[in-house]
Amino acid sequence: MDRPAVAVPILRLGDVLVTGLLDDLDDRSAVAFSLELTERIADDRARGVLIDISRLEIIDSFAARTLMEVTAMARLMGARLIVAGMRPAVAVTLVELGLELTGIETAVHAEQAMTMLGWRSSQQPLKGAL
Amino acid sequence: MDRPAVAVPILRLGDVLVTGLLDDLDDRSAVAFSLELTERIADDRARGVLIDISRLEIIDSFAARTLMEVTAMARLMGARLIVAGMRPAVAVTLVELGLELTGIETAVHAEQAMTMLGWRSSQQPLKGAL
Repeated sequence: MDRPAVAVPILRLGDVLVTGLLDDLDDRSAVAFSLELTERIADDRARGVLIDISRLEIIDSFAARTLMEVTAMARLMGARLIVAGMRPAVAVTLVELGLELTGIETAVHAEQAMTMLGWRSSQQPLKGAL
Repeated sequence: MDRPAVAVPILRLGDVLVTGLLDDLDDRSAVAFSLELTERIADDRARGVLIDISRLEIIDSFAARTLMEVTAMARLMGARLIVAGMRPAVAVTLVELGLELTGIETAVHAEQAMTMLGWRSSQQPLKGAL
């Protein structure tokens, strides 16, 4: 199958896959992303998935649906998926649009999500950083 | 300044920045990547940087130079940069070409790099995974 290239790297940290979405996730990239992520969950035997969305300034209904779908796919494959770092304006817009991302587990930032997935930093967390 | 968009997301996990390079890092993207990474080191007050290169099947002299440069830039800014996951064939080729990435700290995979940067998993690591 001729599959579009994925512009988003998916890193493996232990049994957790870590990735981040950028603003320009178009429909074609979103499909490729779902395919790649599910294949990586199987290949890497991932127990958890972190998707950082702190770079996203807009989540439209298509992107929202993609996030809900990959969450459901991950769950079916036995992995826990956490979406981290949603901007306040995005959250406001989503709720106003009635897109409440039902079923998606969220975290305030990627670090918290990693903690939820069993990773922790032995360093003191940064204070006062953006 | 009109800056090219970066196609590589840089995640912040505590005071560590995590990113991964894909195969198609062309010259323009490499410059944008260096700019973005150094700005993020400053903005996020990062103490460490992990660059996963497990997806890279080729590292040419330009990419090698980019990695050495961002390592030096990170060091100047007070951050420790680790390059993780180099494929065996890439390592063989680099040494044969005399590109030994002097000064770059490496790790066998991203998980090890995160451990070197002060993160650890409370879970048992996966055995036998790819």
